[in-house]
Amino acid sequence: MNAFIIALEMVLGICFLTQTGISAQVPVSESTQTCIACHESIHPGIVEDWRAGRHAAMTPKLAMAVKGPGLKVSSAAVPEHLKAAAVGCAECHTLRSASHQDTFSHNGYDVHVVVSPDDCAVCHSQEQEQFAKNIMAHARKNLAENPVYHQLQETIIGSSVFKEGKVVSEPSDSLTQAETCFYCHGTILQVTGIQTRDTVLGEMDFPEIDGWPNQGVGRVNPDKSLGACSACHTRHQFSIKMARKPYTCKECHVGPDVPAFKVYTASKHGNIFSSMSDTWNFNAVPWTIGRDFIAPTCAACHISQLANVDGDQVAERTHQVSNRLSWRIFGLIYAHPQPRSPDTTIIKNKDGLTLPTGFDGSVAKNWLIDEKTATDRTASMQAICRNCHDTGWVTAHWQRYEHTIRTSNAAVLTATSIMGEIWENRFAEGLSEGKNPFDEAVEKKWQDAWLFYANTIRFTSAMAGGGDFGVFADGRYHLSERIRELEEWLDLRYRIDQNSGRGIPSNTAP
Amino acid sequence: MNAFIIALEMVLGICFLTQTGISAQVPVSESTQTCIACHESIHPGIVEDWRAGRHAAMTPKLAMAVKGPGLKVSSAAVPEHLKAAAVGCAECHTLRSASHQDTFSHNGYDVHVVVSPDDCAVCHSQEQEQFAKNIMAHARKNLAENPVYHQLQETIIGSSVFKEGKVVSEPSDSLTQAETCFYCHGTILQVTGIQTRDTVLGEMDFPEIDGWPNQGVGRVNPDKSLGACSACHTRHQFSIKMARKPYTCKECHVGPDVPAFKVYTASKHGNIFSSMSDTWNFNAVPWTIGRDFIAPTCAACHISQLANVDGDQVAERTHQVSNRLSWRIFGLIYAHPQPRSPDTTIIKNKDGLTLPTGFDGSVAKNWLIDEKTATDRTASMQAICRNCHDTGWVTAHWQRYEHTIRTSNAAVLTATSIMGEIWENRFAEGLSEGKNPFDEAVEKKWQDAWLFYANTIRFTSAMAGGGDFGVFADGRYHLSERIRELEEWLDLRYRIDQNSGRGIPSNTAP
Amino acid sequence: MNAFIIALEMVLGICFLTQTGISAQVPVSESTQTCIACHESIHPGIVEDWRAGRHAAMTPKLAMAVKGPGLKVSSAAVPEHLKAAAVGCAECHTLRSASHQDTFSHNGYDVHVVVSPDDCAVCHSQEQEQFAKNIMAHARKNLAENPVYHQLQETIIGSSVFKEGKVVSEPSDSLTQAETCFYCHGTILQVTGIQTRDTVLGEMDFPEIDGWPNQGVGRVNPDKSLGACSACHTRHQFSIKMARKPYTCKECHVGPDVPAFKVYTASKHGNIFSSMSDTWNFNAVPWTIGRDFIAPTCAACHISQLANVDGDQVAERTHQVSNRLSWRIFGLIYAHPQPRSPDTTIIKNKDGLTLPTGFDGSVAKNWLIDEKTATDRTASMQAICRNCHDTGWVTAHWQRYEHTIRTSNAAVLTATSIMGEIWENRFAEGLSEGKNPFDEAVEKKWQDAWLFYANTIRFTSAMAGGGDFGVFADGRYHLSERIRELEEWLDLRYRIDQNSGRGIPSNTAP
Repeated sequence: MNAFIIALEMVLGICFLTQTGISAQVPVSESTQTCIACHESIHPGIVEDWRAGRHAAMTPKLAMAVKGPGLKVSSAAVPEHLKAAAVGCAECHTLRSASHQDTFSHNGYDVHVVVSPDDCAVCHSQEQEQFAKNIMAHARKNLAENPVYHQLQETIIGSSVFKEGKVVSEPSDSLTQAETCFYCHGTILQVTGIQTRDTVLGEMDFPEIDGWPNQGVGRVNPDKSLGACSACHTRHQFSIKMARKPYTCKECHVGPDVPAFKVYTASKHGNIFSSMSDTWNFNAVPWTIGRDFIAPTCAACHISQLANVDGDQVAERTHQVSNRLSWRIFGLIYAHPQPRSPDTTIIKNKDGLTLPTGFDGSVAKNWLIDEKTATDRTASMQAICRNCHDTGWVTAHWQRYEHTIRTSNAAVLTATSIMGEIWENRFAEGLSEGKNPFDEAVEKKWQDAWLFYANTIRFTSAMAGGGDFGVFADGRYHLSERIRELEEWLDLRYRIDQNSGRGIPSNTAP
Repeated sequence: MNAFIIALEMVLGICFLTQTGISAQVPVSESTQTCIACHESIHPGIVEDWRAGRHAAMTPKLAMAVKGPGLKVSSAAVPEHLKAAAVGCAECHTLRSASHQDTFSHNGYDVHVVVSPDDCAVCHSQEQEQFAKNIMAHARKNLAENPVYHQLQETIIGSSVFKEGKVVSEPSDSLTQAETCFYCHGTILQVTGIQTRDTVLGEMDFPEIDGWPNQGVGRVNPDKSLGACSACHTRHQFSIKMARKPYTCKECHVGPDVPAFKVYTASKHGNIFSSMSDTWNFNAVPWTIGRDFIAPTCAACHISQLANVDGDQVAERTHQVSNRLSWRIFGLIYAHPQPRSPDTTIIKNKDGLTLPTGFDGSVAKNWLIDEKTATDRTASMQAICRNCHDTGWVTAHWQRYEHTIRTSNAAVLTATSIMGEIWENRFAEGLSEGKNPFDEAVEKKWQDAWLFYANTIRFTSAMAGGGDFGVFADGRYHLSERIRELEEWLDLRYRIDQNSGRGIPSNTAP
Repeated sequence: MNAFIIALEMVLGICFLTQTGISAQVPVSESTQTCIACHESIHPGIVEDWRAGRHAAMTPKLAMAVKGPGLKVSSAAVPEHLKAAAVGCAECHTLRSASHQDTFSHNGYDVHVVVSPDDCAVCHSQEQEQFAKNIMAHARKNLAENPVYHQLQETIIGSSVFKEGKVVSEPSDSLTQAETCFYCHGTILQVTGIQTRDTVLGEMDFPEIDGWPNQGVGRVNPDKSLGACSACHTRHQFSIKMARKPYTCKECHVGPDVPAFKVYTASKHGNIFSSMSDTWNFNAVPWTIGRDFIAPTCAACHISQLANVDGDQVAERTHQVSNRLSWRIFGLIYAHPQPRSPDTTIIKNKDGLTLPTGFDGSVAKNWLIDEKTATDRTASMQAICRNCHDTGWVTAHWQRYEHTIRTSNAAVLTATSIMGEIWENRFAEGLSEGKNPFDEAVEKKWQDAWLFYANTIRFTSAMAGGGDFGVFADGRYHLSERIRELEEWLDLRYRIDQNSGRGIPSNTAP
């Protein structure tokens, strides 16, 4: 149809617009022209990518003229000097230069390397405000400054050597941290010095930035702001189309610890996306159900502003992703209500650990949302579901989902109870000996149970990801297998210790 | 090219048709208009999706006028009152209302929630007849009413608690069943009552349906028919394009137990699909090899009606998927000839178990297809292969495939023999003690061998899925690893029991 | 945009060209017409696929007339008799017929079944020359004739039976080899006889070719040449578009042993490809960064000729893939500098084994590239990165990558040290007993560590594949788990043997 409309417009002499409806020529500031003059031959990919995007084809003034839900610039007051030109290199990389530790003098301009959410907020203030309240903005601290998580982290990314018959752990280093956990959670960007480089344009000085490159959602920027809009809005095209596709979420949500993408693509929704989205409009704002797309992507349910064909808004845009989420279903031993604060390092469970539940599944209530909030959030999500599903369908789906939260928690409790007996018998060393409860082989089996399999089961349930996935692809089959392996491990150790005369008699002997 | 043709048609003044060749306006029945009046604002996604599909743009009368292989309505006698209007909400949801247990009075109409294969058969009788003979239509019963399978199922989806040092299993519940095994195999839909809901249009009554929602291929419908056409022909667009893409099959065939999709996408065929299908025509009926597509999807080999560029049919459409299959390569301990009846609960192996083979691999011949039938089915499949591969290629491929069936069965026999010795020594409790042979940790290792790895090897062989997949992605590497783990497990138990003075001496001591 | 340009060309009366810029009609040789006369009805898929490709729409003469980087025919001297017609069936399948062992008389023509790189070299000599120096061309020999690898191979694809309480291995057979390791590495194609087949055109003779079908990169062809261009340039369209998409590489690089595709699709680059490539031009030669595509596929970094928008070449095309690679990061116990010769069977480590490193990680220097070569290759690759990333970014990425090579090697050394103690204690039988070091269960655990997990970590680092992938999807989590499992295994065996009075006292008792 697009082809037809374009051809028709041409024949009728209508002024040509590109398919995205953006006029091809807007003024580019002198500063940005200066940047491009050199950089289009040095880094052609960056410049061309920017040219293909909306920022190159639109001025803030034009963008602010849009009335209603199509408005993309949420700041009421954009500085006058930015309004009339395309949003180019200089507009962002010289913005608020005094606030950036990484600002350096570059051909007469005060340029900073890392554009931060606070820079983006000059035009997109609402999005930044919401994102700052999003748990993702705090992802670095929530991992790095949680003593329990830190122990888990170190068993995974710390190094280990084999000395005198034992594996000895050593702390992880910053290069490894930057390409593992903190690749997604975000690094701390810190200017450590100035480097002089021999470039095609002669010697030049550049800041050395520890932790760079990084696009993690919880990045600590040189201006102290948190996060990286480019994690999802990939530079330098910053395409809405891309942010709305599930591949963007996949970058961080791909492994068995958070298998959102894999579950989605195995679901009916994912099938519709994979099979039919070649004809969808991923750029339209608001995003109209049935006309622009016929099945949700991650963004549709969790972030996007949605409308029906009459133009009525059916979901408000939010960059505080938990707004439509009542449960937190992954990353911790048990599923639990969403935390109240995006800073989860303040949580204490009944044993004084920085965890939203006890090892026995009891909930650290004071730090988690109450039932009323949970109900409201569930209602926000269900309002989206109901655009394509009747109430009976939605209610029954939810009943199954919350049932699965309970049963998966119960299964993890079974695994944890066996682990508890293993610790009690000192067959492994845990918290009560002041030791890391995550670093021994049998403790890894227990982690598999909740970190991978119970999670996968819950994601599959939440997203109706299909029976086969939730059963056999890191799901119930594997969870039940691990529980039985823990049982067998304990039985075996009893037998061995009984033989040695040291152990407690096995109560599972045939 | 499409763009060119469309532009050309316009310039030449040819009447404009959409790209799918459907005229834009057909009459919509008054009843359906009534449905739409409310539902397009309540459930806009459903209505818009339907509008985008063929049912909205075509009447049965127009559809029946097509001569030859393009005919999509296989019923000779479609009721007169349905012929002249689009196939809309009312046409399906008020059809055969007396037969549906879930029919309820809704604004003066007798509406049923669940449209069944018997409803679809009013226009598509041949497809329904074939599907009823398809093993998929019987998927629920074949799992739920097979006592052996049921034991396996319960070890996976049943719950378990840790009591006095032992894991104790408890039966699975219906909510869990509905989102696991029976999500794909199909639930029983049963009306359990009437619910009054407060809607935007005031109080209304709706049936409460146990087991709903469900789109499983073996669903038992409120009209007693079996299956759900919407499992593959996703509501409410019912797009051929979607059913022909492999993502549809992936919904149920994604895990390591039935890795068809994963193997396909790693194969040459899958690569061609992924790389080149943006220019294919997925809507054409019949589906012309070389013009509409250049490499098969799942549907092309297993279901679709295919033609060559001269319009000659090279494969008949079938919804009885086993029509082109001689071997059943997954889901059971050993690969074996396809069962004769789609109802596999009638099978008895030599030990009286409802299994197509013994634990020793011996085949329950009487219940499985004979050699003649197998040869005919192989010939049907090879006729498709030969459109793009010469006879030498096809024959050699088949020789490898049938060889792999034999060798993978042999490897499973090796695993099962070790397991047999484990049972004999009472190191685990199996059938001879009247116990579940699937629920202990070591029994899970044995299941991994046949339920995941031998299967994956066979799928990779059948679909030429690539060496790397069949070796390292749940394939031969893992199968050989499990066999060695079983051997080691047995050796270890011998050693431990020997130490305790109870055991049989280890015959594998160094 | 394409649609617009096409429409514009039409209106302006410009001679119509298809979207690929190829004129629709070129002469087809008489011989090829004879082939097509029969084969288009027997194998319509082959003929139609060829018709859709460039070979059908272009003569060598026209192709050779292109000046500059768009030139696709690298041979200066193409035989005169081939120049004027499309490159059809007869052109390739009767070329150099005296050199092919599989040439047979077919309706008066000397036809060979298998078109080899030496046939392709008649027009594409440079590509063949480069490929012959590529390690891939030697993939068959490098696996089959390396005694150490051969041992590993046999533990995976050999068969095994359970006899008198022990698993006994038997050698792999040729049918299994052909669909496993050598599906990718390449089989030896050998004519073993002539078969008379009853065809629709009467009785005909065809060569029987052992090892056929096969498209492995290291195939040994009936003309003694090595490789199969069709591995990546899929017959019979031989589309550049397809070779440039990552799905082609996935065919062989999909499992955990070489997870290049999986890592790529989880990376930012892969996300951009998945989300945005629907508008890219995959056919343009040279391939222009920013205009034709905005993020690299596998081919962009490793093979393709790249240009910037000014038409300057920024990367030379190479079919010797190691040209831009300094490290070999998979398939062996430790990562190490790339081998000097593509024939790796000549390598000897300090213990006389055909391995690039010792079991202790020491490097077989003489056989591997020196630092200067490594630096040059790194520079070639970084030159590509810098089209979209500044020097600071690229340098920091590389620092992390080379750090990860060191730390992953260190982790494998830890695993190997534990394994060494297991061998020393004769808890498993390894090289010093003259036994296969890869065939026991505990040895498989050790292999998992380097063959899957250390590899995956390195691929993720090299391709910036995302923290979640390299940590949880066969990455650091699993590597650390295996190290702890090896430690536990050893501890357990000590305990058991101590109980029996045979063992060395456990030094890890609590």
